[in-house]
Amino acid sequence: MDTFGLSPIGVVESPLVDPSQAPRQGDEGAPTARIVLQTELEVATEGIGVGDTLLVLTWLHLADRAVRRTRPRSDPDRAAVGVFATRSPDRPNPIGVHRVRVTRIDGCTLTVDGLEAVDGTPVLDLRPVLGGVDER
Amino acid sequence: MDTFGLSPIGVVESPLVDPSQAPRQGDEGAPTARIVLQTELEVATEGIGVGDTLLVLTWLHLADRAVRRTRPRSDPDRAAVGVFATRSPDRPNPIGVHRVRVTRIDGCTLTVDGLEAVDGTPVLDLRPVLGGVDER
Repeated sequence: MDTFGLSPIGVVESPLVDPSQAPRQGDEGAPTARIVLQTELEVATEGIGVGDTLLVLTWLHLADRAVRRTRPRSDPDRAAVGVFATRSPDRPNPIGVHRVRVTRIDGCTLTVDGLEAVDGTPVLDLRPVLGGVDER
Repeated sequence: MDTFGLSPIGVVESPLVDPSQAPRQGDEGAPTARIVLQTELEVATEGIGVGDTLLVLTWLHLADRAVRRTRPRSDPDRAAVGVFATRSPDRPNPIGVHRVRVTRIDGCTLTVDGLEAVDGTPVLDLRPVLGGVDER
């Protein structure tokens, strides 16, 4: 099949540097982090406000894309299962899906709570979380 | 910045052929669809069961990646805002995030409810929805 090229829109700045330190989910103690967007994309952030909840997509650049079976991190004693039955970062297309809250906006830099990505993680997309669908 | 290459893991088969017919969100009447994975990835689906709720990531291949400002589809009378403040498929990295329920598994073919992607949409990833984080 064809392949598609992703271009990062920005990068994560975070005190998290070691993937093994990263909390399993964003609400399990992720530190405050910054999303620094490319300056030419500032126009694409218009309408985002402090207090908004965003879905952030990242490229998990440290992932092993060759893994097909793994043990779930949430239950390492279980037998290995297919990676599509887990949330392991090691998967064919290692895209991170994170839910964060915007606490500050300063030009192309968004400060956010709850982002469990390590420093230097490329950012692919930002989008609003709508009340309805994501809550269900 | 660097670019990253995505390789589709499969493709959507759906009666939806026209993006303008696609419901805005998956629970607004999306028909039953099938996700046909590449045969060599069947091992990576082990552990997925009928009744599971999955997050499906797709590549929205019909999107216009050059768009930076748009009107929200949910409120077309509003002034244009940045694409990152909307869920428009037209965005720099047009990755679809869909929540579906598995109704049948037949080898590499998963039948699912609630997938609002048109026929032929490349599939990038499948992962389980965990009770906690995605519900909040």
